[in-house]
Amino acid sequence: MPTDPNTGDAAVPETIDAGLLTPVSVEHDAVVSDAAIGGALIAAETALARAWSATDVAPVDAGELVSDALGWQGAGRPCELRGFPLAQLTADAVAGGNPVIPLVAVLRARVPESVRTWVHRGATSQDIMDSALMLVARRAAAEVLAHLDETGAALRAFAEAHRHEVVVARTLTQQAVPTTVGLRAANWLRGIDRAAQRLATATDALPAQLAGAGGTLASFVEIGGIDAAAQLPARFAAELGLRAPDGPWHTERWPITELGDALVQVTDALGKMAADVTTLSRTEIGELSEGTGGGSSAMPQKRNPARSVLIRSAAIRAPHLGATLHTASALAVDERPDGAWHAEWPALRDLLRAALGASAQARTVAHGLRADAEAGARNLAHSRGLVLSERLNLVLTPLLGAEAVQSFVSRAGRGEDLREILAADPEVVASGVDLDDLLDPARYTGLAGRLVDGSDPDPLPNV
Amino acid sequence: MPTDPNTGDAAVPETIDAGLLTPVSVEHDAVVSDAAIGGALIAAETALARAWSATDVAPVDAGELVSDALGWQGAGRPCELRGFPLAQLTADAVAGGNPVIPLVAVLRARVPESVRTWVHRGATSQDIMDSALMLVARRAAAEVLAHLDETGAALRAFAEAHRHEVVVARTLTQQAVPTTVGLRAANWLRGIDRAAQRLATATDALPAQLAGAGGTLASFVEIGGIDAAAQLPARFAAELGLRAPDGPWHTERWPITELGDALVQVTDALGKMAADVTTLSRTEIGELSEGTGGGSSAMPQKRNPARSVLIRSAAIRAPHLGATLHTASALAVDERPDGAWHAEWPALRDLLRAALGASAQARTVAHGLRADAEAGARNLAHSRGLVLSERLNLVLTPLLGAEAVQSFVSRAGRGEDLREILAADPEVVASGVDLDDLLDPARYTGLAGRLVDGSDPDPLPNV
Amino acid sequence: MPTDPNTGDAAVPETIDAGLLTPVSVEHDAVVSDAAIGGALIAAETALARAWSATDVAPVDAGELVSDALGWQGAGRPCELRGFPLAQLTADAVAGGNPVIPLVAVLRARVPESVRTWVHRGATSQDIMDSALMLVARRAAAEVLAHLDETGAALRAFAEAHRHEVVVARTLTQQAVPTTVGLRAANWLRGIDRAAQRLATATDALPAQLAGAGGTLASFVEIGGIDAAAQLPARFAAELGLRAPDGPWHTERWPITELGDALVQVTDALGKMAADVTTLSRTEIGELSEGTGGGSSAMPQKRNPARSVLIRSAAIRAPHLGATLHTASALAVDERPDGAWHAEWPALRDLLRAALGASAQARTVAHGLRADAEAGARNLAHSRGLVLSERLNLVLTPLLGAEAVQSFVSRAGRGEDLREILAADPEVVASGVDLDDLLDPARYTGLAGRLVDGSDPDPLPNV
Amino acid sequence: MPTDPNTGDAAVPETIDAGLLTPVSVEHDAVVSDAAIGGALIAAETALARAWSATDVAPVDAGELVSDALGWQGAGRPCELRGFPLAQLTADAVAGGNPVIPLVAVLRARVPESVRTWVHRGATSQDIMDSALMLVARRAAAEVLAHLDETGAALRAFAEAHRHEVVVARTLTQQAVPTTVGLRAANWLRGIDRAAQRLATATDALPAQLAGAGGTLASFVEIGGIDAAAQLPARFAAELGLRAPDGPWHTERWPITELGDALVQVTDALGKMAADVTTLSRTEIGELSEGTGGGSSAMPQKRNPARSVLIRSAAIRAPHLGATLHTASALAVDERPDGAWHAEWPALRDLLRAALGASAQARTVAHGLRADAEAGARNLAHSRGLVLSERLNLVLTPLLGAEAVQSFVSRAGRGEDLREILAADPEVVASGVDLDDLLDPARYTGLAGRLVDGSDPDPLPNV
Repeated sequence: MPTDPNTGDAAVPETIDAGLLTPVSVEHDAVVSDAAIGGALIAAETALARAWSATDVAPVDAGELVSDALGWQGAGRPCELRGFPLAQLTADAVAGGNPVIPLVAVLRARVPESVRTWVHRGATSQDIMDSALMLVARRAAAEVLAHLDETGAALRAFAEAHRHEVVVARTLTQQAVPTTVGLRAANWLRGIDRAAQRLATATDALPAQLAGAGGTLASFVEIGGIDAAAQLPARFAAELGLRAPDGPWHTERWPITELGDALVQVTDALGKMAADVTTLSRTEIGELSEGTGGGSSAMPQKRNPARSVLIRSAAIRAPHLGATLHTASALAVDERPDGAWHAEWPALRDLLRAALGASAQARTVAHGLRADAEAGARNLAHSRGLVLSERLNLVLTPLLGAEAVQSFVSRAGRGEDLREILAADPEVVASGVDLDDLLDPARYTGLAGRLVDGSDPDPLPNV
Repeated sequence: MPTDPNTGDAAVPETIDAGLLTPVSVEHDAVVSDAAIGGALIAAETALARAWSATDVAPVDAGELVSDALGWQGAGRPCELRGFPLAQLTADAVAGGNPVIPLVAVLRARVPESVRTWVHRGATSQDIMDSALMLVARRAAAEVLAHLDETGAALRAFAEAHRHEVVVARTLTQQAVPTTVGLRAANWLRGIDRAAQRLATATDALPAQLAGAGGTLASFVEIGGIDAAAQLPARFAAELGLRAPDGPWHTERWPITELGDALVQVTDALGKMAADVTTLSRTEIGELSEGTGGGSSAMPQKRNPARSVLIRSAAIRAPHLGATLHTASALAVDERPDGAWHAEWPALRDLLRAALGASAQARTVAHGLRADAEAGARNLAHSRGLVLSERLNLVLTPLLGAEAVQSFVSRAGRGEDLREILAADPEVVASGVDLDDLLDPARYTGLAGRLVDGSDPDPLPNV
Repeated sequence: MPTDPNTGDAAVPETIDAGLLTPVSVEHDAVVSDAAIGGALIAAETALARAWSATDVAPVDAGELVSDALGWQGAGRPCELRGFPLAQLTADAVAGGNPVIPLVAVLRARVPESVRTWVHRGATSQDIMDSALMLVARRAAAEVLAHLDETGAALRAFAEAHRHEVVVARTLTQQAVPTTVGLRAANWLRGIDRAAQRLATATDALPAQLAGAGGTLASFVEIGGIDAAAQLPARFAAELGLRAPDGPWHTERWPITELGDALVQVTDALGKMAADVTTLSRTEIGELSEGTGGGSSAMPQKRNPARSVLIRSAAIRAPHLGATLHTASALAVDERPDGAWHAEWPALRDLLRAALGASAQARTVAHGLRADAEAGARNLAHSRGLVLSERLNLVLTPLLGAEAVQSFVSRAGRGEDLREILAADPEVVASGVDLDDLLDPARYTGLAGRLVDGSDPDPLPNV
Repeated sequence: MPTDPNTGDAAVPETIDAGLLTPVSVEHDAVVSDAAIGGALIAAETALARAWSATDVAPVDAGELVSDALGWQGAGRPCELRGFPLAQLTADAVAGGNPVIPLVAVLRARVPESVRTWVHRGATSQDIMDSALMLVARRAAAEVLAHLDETGAALRAFAEAHRHEVVVARTLTQQAVPTTVGLRAANWLRGIDRAAQRLATATDALPAQLAGAGGTLASFVEIGGIDAAAQLPARFAAELGLRAPDGPWHTERWPITELGDALVQVTDALGKMAADVTTLSRTEIGELSEGTGGGSSAMPQKRNPARSVLIRSAAIRAPHLGATLHTASALAVDERPDGAWHAEWPALRDLLRAALGASAQARTVAHGLRADAEAGARNLAHSRGLVLSERLNLVLTPLLGAEAVQSFVSRAGRGEDLREILAADPEVVASGVDLDDLLDPARYTGLAGRLVDGSDPDPLPNV
């Protein structure tokens, strides 16, 4: 236990992190702060007392008395802290390896003596920690989902607004064929929507934990009898706005990893959007800009895509955080593991922060995003027609043979203007091909429009 | 392109891996071997020709002619290789960065000239690679699911057979309270079933890819018109036994990461079981043994849990492989990324192998698993009653006060026999507590039995 | 920029992390706290002004005036914060993506106008951030090294004290052959010493960063001329107690990853020790105990290896944090990357925390570690002689043939006492083999003693 | 053990990987192929017999007889396979979890009966596996180092050739200030040289493993006496061209992780170069091209940086592979761990492959790399002077005040030509500033030239 070397008192730990090194998330960290977690831990203890009353084992008013004493704010919400000594709790948590042990002592002192026995009644530390973290996760995920929802709405509008704006698609960094700004945004949207759907599913499945020291619920049976004990987890879960567990999951950690996977899927989808934004914001490309901030007074030519940079920083970190949760899950030996459980806590919080921050920044990016039509057109014209070479092959090869087409394209590849080559070729002229149409990138965007249309929910119909 | 230094011919690469360093998976590698992937690539090309015929764009017999020439074996199956020069293909794949480019040349030479044009018609390399890998993944995942199904059945039987066998639960490596062998196995089962369910969902969602060079399907529209092009992806997918894509996913990689996440969840769940098996197989614990193999003639006291060791090796690796897929997903810039796509291939295959191998070994472990009742009883008695100390607190504290109970427990903690202490205490005797019951571990297993029962699908009822 | 929704003022971010979820590190977090990083950022800015004076470009007293104003505390130390508005800085850091931009404004306002121009003179944000993080890292690493040094000393004493204490070596969880407590500890020591040596090397190599916006030092040349500019990085580095860089490393990130790798090597080595401690502390094994804490009043039979559990939690997380730094390094495009740099900050801090916490806990573990000789002897006797079966093979096979030895061992494997079998065998008796010696585990510990001896630095001599 | 369902014979596993999914490495895989590993395993067994002879324990000719029988090729080289049934070995390796157990049986049958006893004499499986993998790693690393050496030479020449070629530096994707092509390449070179140096150090430290079943060398002492046993590891190591171990490292895995870290540092450094090449090869930027391959006949405008794409794919994967080795290291419990050791094997091989492939591709890239001076100049002119705005601030602010300079720059930021603005400003004219010099990017490259010069080994001198 950390103690002050002079006084022997438990030393109050210094604040590590208020966001100085994680600007991506600073605006949205409150929901996963130490205060939020402290409030959730208290809420879990309170919910347990409430559940005991609800199952008629504790006196009917015990739950309410504990609730009043501990700042209960209703299902799905952390308790008010009311001056709770969080820093002290942190300091005291070292000896036992988790904050629940010192927490219980503090909480018992705060409730009326008549109901003291119902605080932490029958529970094990992990019941409280897991349930509190699920409560925090649920609230954080809801905020992420709200960000994604707004991001999606903005992208949908953006995609529709730029449905017909033809730009160049790039593969392996090279200009390839035409596409549209709208399709690009619609693809981001599809990825983000999918991730949101998965996060919603994972969040909805988050269970409370309540199974006692060995996962058998024996203590609850001892206290309340078998029927009450069997109902207790669901009552407890309901108080916290969480799912009833279908069994102890002290060392079956899918609730943690399914949530983690969904959060990483969120940062992946946002990271892909951000990668496109930073790339297409490059000075020499200039097709997109964030529309806000990122300027530099000393170097006004710079229009840093600062928010997308922050999103990318989160997307680079997130897979490693998600993997930490899986490593911990795979090592969850016994009925409570010797390190794997403790490893989850900071990784899960960091991952929630990454998703909160990335989704908040993405919302702003999506709302402010500007497509520079002039730059798009300039880039599209860069190859002097060669972005249509695939089409040329498809259209002219049947008419003129592969060799002739190859020759046109090769000459264009060496710098000649493709249109001029074609217009000067007698065979092409004789073929009657409409060069205006053939070389119009807007005529070679396939199903891009259909893939954008919100009105067509199934652009590629099932057979 | 690798060439033989003497002949100038493309050098045939040497076999890297037939499992020498991955014994976990060697029995089940065929489904993800180079041959399987080669067959799947050919199947994807064949399916495209079939789809063109099915949409009435290609001649009605083109699909069948290509199928006959390329060894088509039906939906959801790779083509026969028929002496296809895979090693040469590998060697030739370096220059372009993927094997599809040299593949197309070989395949075109193998089909009748009349239908040659329908090979790879309108497609881009990534359409073929992605679809082929999804075909391989689908088949491999089906095999994993079959393994998990058998594993689950064996564990269910094991859990029921050991429903009443009381052993000690351990937290942070220390004996804590009683539980049962049955509950332990039922918990593994719950974790494995959940993972299987998630893998089934992810597998069922695996889409084909067919969107052309820029993801617009423009080439398909050019070739077959807009209606045929719109139907083509679904037709193509149906030929491969895959889902129709709801849009291009060249750089929206959730199909890959959702599959990867589910596979890691599988190895997590199996890894947890294996961690328990290796731990409980420890010489000094001896509650479980694999029942097969792992012996040593020189050291016959060793009963190595060899299969669980291999499962753990896969479970340790898998989170990192899954994270690789997420990193690649987050970096999927443009319409085809500059490295992130290529990074997926070996990681996905390795992850499929890890899950194949771990699930196959788990099946064998689950079938052979033996619980040593004698060792379980010996370990349960190890603390001379202290595994009941939680119960003691619950039962005696209301009768005798916390101080008295604390004193009993402390004395027992110093080595006295708990039962003797209690039996000698006048207050305990006066209380009329039934010591036989109180100190019987079998009377303190809570809902363990109910949590095992297959007949009760909802042991912890929802409210 | 986060603003208070009511006042429009920049919102002060809430504390995320004072250690509530990372008990492993809470006692040692101050050195990497936001305050420490803030102080280091100010120190980097101050050091730059001092370097300008040292190269005779700035007035001779400019460096001192800035130092006085900004709380300079000497080379290698952060500046005093003196009420610096860190939380505000954090809030303001979002727009530009890093805290240096708002920092400079605050610092300029705090220095005398006469020297204001020398604050941040010629530097780019990354020069300051990188240098400040290196300063923080150097101090944190020094603390880790001190912990490791004390840990090593305690382990050395422990190994020597238990040099002759024979216990059983375990492979694949099974008892194999004898070893000693001393050798086990000596092996930990070798791993920790190696990691410490590597961390010392990496720490000693930590360079300052000073190369200007594009990495050319052009601004410094413009301000001070080519000779002063060429000397400036080394002067700057000396002020900070860091190495002079041999070139710009804005996007060549080996200083970060080499440090990260060494930190992970530290947590690996400590994690290995902790894995052994938690395993050998298992109730049924009981050969080791932490000697402090981890008790439970309700379950006094539990002697939780709580500190080793925390060490393991750090060791499980650290590889993923180290990998994050490598991913960022590999993606460091351009002269400052679009996300990879920002991704390093929280990962590096977390990794420093993990190493700080794990090494501090390890020091305590090493000092308190107790070996239970009785348990060791009991476990050694568990197989009734079979831990000597390898020796039996080596000694008796030349005398009696493999078949006979195999028969002895097989019978012992079925439960007979090996010594009794041998003593009753006429051929063994006739062979004159000294059974007391043959079956004494202490006579089969090979070079264990030599491998422990501190007096023999090279137990396995080079040829 | 995998058996053929029809014959009951051990099934020969199918080839998993000859590079079809890892084109990056296919040309260089032989050195880490199953054949190479098989040869190294045999070499380790042979080296042990040789070491026994060298220490005068085995008959003087035993080592040679075994060598002749097993295809010994000298120190540091794998044995010839001579029809060794590798696939069978792989199949048989499953039961015991590693290939050494079946290997020994095969090898003993291949040597003369008189020396049979000296095969695997006293060793444990891990001694042979670890030593063989170190032998393979050493050879693979030497090849990587040769690639890096050639890459470095080519980059040095490239940097010198383009020492004066001014281009724009980019930060956060935006044009910032001038730099040179030479400096960019010199920075890559510094990163690669550092990584090579670290890999050379790690490779040089690779130890043999020889410590027997429990890590005490007891079997060797029993066989040869204490002095011979003490010398044996060094003799054994010398035969393999490896370092003598300073102790058993069965579960102290720094040799593996230090090698792994260095390999990841290699792919990081190459990945950074590749990231710059793919970025600067973008169609719209066009400053660099690979000079070879990557073309597309259908889309001749594409100049895919195919090799850099492959390098990036390796660099994206490698951090996760390196982290796998660390996870395994941290979990190396007991005297041989229950899964962590087995997890290393495929991860280490894959990491060697990634580094082999990336370095081979980098060599080709470095030799073929072309800088397009015209594109560089065009991009530099893109901002119409604003890439000099930092310089403008430094030069003009002292003369005209910050406000005036800000105004110039702002106007330029809105599209005016900076030079015209300045030339038209009376105060600027009056100041006598040489606009030709001020706005010449070549005059604002700071120490770029010096940082390139090979002749100046210490461009930023230490103080």
